[in-house]
Amino acid sequence: MTALPTEVVDYQPDEPTLYTFGGVEPVAMIRPGQILRTYTEDCFGGSVLSVDDLPSKVCEAFNPVTGPFHVQGAEPGDTLALHLISLTPARDRAMSATFPHFGALTATHTTAMLHPPLEERVWQYDIDRPAGVVRYRARRSQFTVELPLDPMLGTVGVAPANGEVRQSIVPDAHGGNLDVPELRAGTTLYLGVNVPGALFSLGDGHARQGHGEVCGVGVECAMRVVLVADVIRGVWTPWPRIETNSRLLSIGAARPLEDAYRISQLDLVHWVTDLTGLDVLDAYQLVSQAGQAAPGNVCDPLYTMHAAIPTSVLRGATAYGGVHRRLRQHAGAAG
Amino acid sequence: MTALPTEVVDYQPDEPTLYTFGGVEPVAMIRPGQILRTYTEDCFGGSVLSVDDLPSKVCEAFNPVTGPFHVQGAEPGDTLALHLISLTPARDRAMSATFPHFGALTATHTTAMLHPPLEERVWQYDIDRPAGVVRYRARRSQFTVELPLDPMLGTVGVAPANGEVRQSIVPDAHGGNLDVPELRAGTTLYLGVNVPGALFSLGDGHARQGHGEVCGVGVECAMRVVLVADVIRGVWTPWPRIETNSRLLSIGAARPLEDAYRISQLDLVHWVTDLTGLDVLDAYQLVSQAGQAAPGNVCDPLYTMHAAIPTSVLRGATAYGGVHRRLRQHAGAAG
Amino acid sequence: MTALPTEVVDYQPDEPTLYTFGGVEPVAMIRPGQILRTYTEDCFGGSVLSVDDLPSKVCEAFNPVTGPFHVQGAEPGDTLALHLISLTPARDRAMSATFPHFGALTATHTTAMLHPPLEERVWQYDIDRPAGVVRYRARRSQFTVELPLDPMLGTVGVAPANGEVRQSIVPDAHGGNLDVPELRAGTTLYLGVNVPGALFSLGDGHARQGHGEVCGVGVECAMRVVLVADVIRGVWTPWPRIETNSRLLSIGAARPLEDAYRISQLDLVHWVTDLTGLDVLDAYQLVSQAGQAAPGNVCDPLYTMHAAIPTSVLRGATAYGGVHRRLRQHAGAAG
Amino acid sequence: MTALPTEVVDYQPDEPTLYTFGGVEPVAMIRPGQILRTYTEDCFGGSVLSVDDLPSKVCEAFNPVTGPFHVQGAEPGDTLALHLISLTPARDRAMSATFPHFGALTATHTTAMLHPPLEERVWQYDIDRPAGVVRYRARRSQFTVELPLDPMLGTVGVAPANGEVRQSIVPDAHGGNLDVPELRAGTTLYLGVNVPGALFSLGDGHARQGHGEVCGVGVECAMRVVLVADVIRGVWTPWPRIETNSRLLSIGAARPLEDAYRISQLDLVHWVTDLTGLDVLDAYQLVSQAGQAAPGNVCDPLYTMHAAIPTSVLRGATAYGGVHRRLRQHAGAAG
Repeated sequence: MTALPTEVVDYQPDEPTLYTFGGVEPVAMIRPGQILRTYTEDCFGGSVLSVDDLPSKVCEAFNPVTGPFHVQGAEPGDTLALHLISLTPARDRAMSATFPHFGALTATHTTAMLHPPLEERVWQYDIDRPAGVVRYRARRSQFTVELPLDPMLGTVGVAPANGEVRQSIVPDAHGGNLDVPELRAGTTLYLGVNVPGALFSLGDGHARQGHGEVCGVGVECAMRVVLVADVIRGVWTPWPRIETNSRLLSIGAARPLEDAYRISQLDLVHWVTDLTGLDVLDAYQLVSQAGQAAPGNVCDPLYTMHAAIPTSVLRGATAYGGVHRRLRQHAGAAG
Repeated sequence: MTALPTEVVDYQPDEPTLYTFGGVEPVAMIRPGQILRTYTEDCFGGSVLSVDDLPSKVCEAFNPVTGPFHVQGAEPGDTLALHLISLTPARDRAMSATFPHFGALTATHTTAMLHPPLEERVWQYDIDRPAGVVRYRARRSQFTVELPLDPMLGTVGVAPANGEVRQSIVPDAHGGNLDVPELRAGTTLYLGVNVPGALFSLGDGHARQGHGEVCGVGVECAMRVVLVADVIRGVWTPWPRIETNSRLLSIGAARPLEDAYRISQLDLVHWVTDLTGLDVLDAYQLVSQAGQAAPGNVCDPLYTMHAAIPTSVLRGATAYGGVHRRLRQHAGAAG
Repeated sequence: MTALPTEVVDYQPDEPTLYTFGGVEPVAMIRPGQILRTYTEDCFGGSVLSVDDLPSKVCEAFNPVTGPFHVQGAEPGDTLALHLISLTPARDRAMSATFPHFGALTATHTTAMLHPPLEERVWQYDIDRPAGVVRYRARRSQFTVELPLDPMLGTVGVAPANGEVRQSIVPDAHGGNLDVPELRAGTTLYLGVNVPGALFSLGDGHARQGHGEVCGVGVECAMRVVLVADVIRGVWTPWPRIETNSRLLSIGAARPLEDAYRISQLDLVHWVTDLTGLDVLDAYQLVSQAGQAAPGNVCDPLYTMHAAIPTSVLRGATAYGGVHRRLRQHAGAAG
Repeated sequence: MTALPTEVVDYQPDEPTLYTFGGVEPVAMIRPGQILRTYTEDCFGGSVLSVDDLPSKVCEAFNPVTGPFHVQGAEPGDTLALHLISLTPARDRAMSATFPHFGALTATHTTAMLHPPLEERVWQYDIDRPAGVVRYRARRSQFTVELPLDPMLGTVGVAPANGEVRQSIVPDAHGGNLDVPELRAGTTLYLGVNVPGALFSLGDGHARQGHGEVCGVGVECAMRVVLVADVIRGVWTPWPRIETNSRLLSIGAARPLEDAYRISQLDLVHWVTDLTGLDVLDAYQLVSQAGQAAPGNVCDPLYTMHAAIPTSVLRGATAYGGVHRRLRQHAGAAG
């Protein structure tokens, strides 16, 4: 990889209009190494302003994304690396809700049952950035409690393969609504490229979320996003992967949930095999004992789980030729 | 609760003979507060002595448990609290394996397919207790790596309800083969009592395991176990729960995996509701944002997941009247 | 097989007391070829006498079975053949119901959700045996309609393997609560024998049921049962199988439902392979195109599906050495 | 509905180029009542010509569809009725195959496992239309057998909602790759309209298939199709439905398979409620006892099941104002 440019590209979207991955012309083109500063509206399109705004009444669509961005030089068969430099809540409040027939502990349109929906209810969280907390307030009592602020992006993806266009609410091999809390600032997301320019979009910022997003909705907030992209040419990534400073994560998206587990574990076994030269059953054994796993969402059209392994057990092996470290250093130099 | 006795009961089992929960007379009676010192053989019954001992050749049965123990005064409708004081690997090695048609990334007898089984292979780990590590050794290369020693019990349960007798390999509402790595020394396990005396048994020690036990087998080792039991009278616990010094965990066991997730999350929502007085939807929201989750096993006859919440967010609420803290103090005093 | 005896054994049970498979001494011994005349109470133990008797109020336990019967000479590794000679509703009415948190279109204890249960409601059906119909009556309107009378046994099984004792509500490899409507008079059920004498029990008669028993309950009625047993020595049957005069059926029991499908299809592929000498992939192809499938229940602790194939496509191959035809002829001669 | 026109529209496609639903301009416009005569290539695009043509070698894409057709006057919120007048195999042979990592009894890309794929193998069937049979020939022995010819369309759908574009291999609420053998000549398929003109496409003819298409592939053949469309204005159909001369069927598409069951059963319960005026729990009970169910496919990206009820039990109620009968009569008059 040659030296990366350090220009900054600013892209500030208008009102939310994009709710899909695929099938749309890019809004901007960026070059590998350029710093992209942009903004993502919350999953309610900014329409839920108080606990009295029921999403089913005030929203016409859900989960807008910003983009798509064309990454110069990205071609099908390559891997797009997106390094998140910073995620900053754009407001001092965030919203959550229950939504009719959506979530893990309710009948849904596909886990179809005779039950009427649970009550639709909205919660407002105060975000205290200096203190690094969000404040939960109960709606039926005076109970409040502070939880750690832990900003993440719920939805990042590229244009899908095979000419498909998918709603932004869907996670799959192209990324999308992964809802994996590990997608924080400082991490690098790897996605296989299906179309020229990759055409990535992003959105669905959460001030924080629990594992599995059990009620179906995180602590939703508009987000200022700074990131840098790179392209790993000629290397394919079949399912979304994340690299942090200490771990490698593979993400699977499927139903039933064990298939999301299987996809993520098998991808990690293959990744470890590639990085260490271990025989595949030896890698299977190592992942079995050193691996970590957690659900991202158990509510979206496909469920997600991640499989993770500490890089320390890989004895110095480096993923994708060290692109994560380089992008981190580059971001530091550019910042 | 009155003062607990501090006698120590020693029970050292003979050759493994017990492979079920339920239907068996107790081997010993203990009183609440008595310290039980016992031993559990590994899941291979101690028969896999080297990497040349294939489990399918050398084992006649799997997952022996030690017990059952009758806890004086435990009656149906009560909750049994088992506080694990210490778990000490009884040997300086531990074994793992792939096993034909068992594990998450292989066809099994119920995820039935036309594939022949994967290769059966055994791995031997050295346990270095002073250093607090286990050493993984690849079988097809020279790769070795140290992983943290993190002893746990895979299998702890009581006699099931409704007169059922279940194989020890099965996890369910009675506990059993939970394979939840959080069941370490220093934690308290809560199980609903189904029969007089509860009749708990334990086994399947792991020097460590990954989340989901993806290959189907942990780092299996015989274990010296010290624990203390107590009975919470008149309080029922529908699914296994664990209390650590900083978290509450609910465990679900079911297939598909999302049902294990649902059970554990719903139990935790109800538990948080009980402890905080929150309205149930308010508790659902709090768990959604503050909750943690991970798979225990994705290979046993029922899969397990846990749902967890930091006790710090419960604003001082105390589970089961503080039995975990009392047992911890009692163990410290007895030690 | 030598000539079968033609004596008749009558066994009329007292009040229902048996709710499990396994762990119980036999109530009677029968010899292969003897005709057994017995009676099964309905799944409510006969306690739901009108639409005002809510099962959750009037029943203490569910799904009583009659037995177990020891079949002389049956040994582990053999196959028990049970030929149902006749199934006659023992009353002129049958009952059905919705039950709290039970059924396919409701949250349950394992598909755990925050919904309160659906309304518990009872329906009474009139049985008109001469006309061969049961009469459905709506509870909230005057709508009535006649449906074909189609008597079947929901629950037939043997003592499980590995010393397990399972509730009679559970279907699994040992049979149990299969809820497969094809288990009619004139068919032969094959079950692998796990303990000496096989120790089979039966119950849960339905005047009819739909595929999957979607509300969780069939048209439940006490039943007079006449059957004859035989033992196929040295031949193992891994999952329940049924032979009719025109079809072979394999039954799988598992969750998720696709695993019940997989088990049943794989067992049928292996069965067809054995009977025809086809290569296994050739049998897979034949079953793929000529096979039939339907759900038995999608509500019990494990779901059931059957895979079936017309015997006509097997070009004269005969299952289990022709035992179905011989038992049918024997029953005719004995009748 | 006014009198329907009886003109015939012929549309003969060129080489297969369409592999998606949605996102494409119509190839032709038809008016309600016009007879459409068209042709569908087989799922291999006609490239598998003998048992030596392995699909993975000779095919670049799978499951081409013919269309889309714009139906004049169809608007979002309406229901499209497609009455299949005739389905005629266009060749005297049909092909089936196993395909790497596709099918119900193999590891797949989402039921991800460490197994290498099963052998890829092709079977050729002779179609004897006068005799009404297809001839199966084993590949590894001389075994052959005739099976009933039972032509159906595996794939019929409209443009999806929300601007999505889906691969033709996917079944969902818009129809698509349903693989339901009941979609024969003489039946009417109902699909909710999502875009102006509905934009339906069709393909994937099978000379026959078993329930669940267990190996992943039917008896695939190019098909001459004659059909007539109509639009039911202002009436929405949430999931695909089929009406035959004697039954109503609802189709669900989802994973796990129990969710496909739930969707189809719930849709049928609601449909019966609408048609009969029954209270919804009364309809649930009626469907529970009179209903039928079977899997369509247990191999595609979403699995399908149908729920069916004989129209005879609905006491004269008529679906969609009798459009099925009218289209049938119209087709007869036009023929």
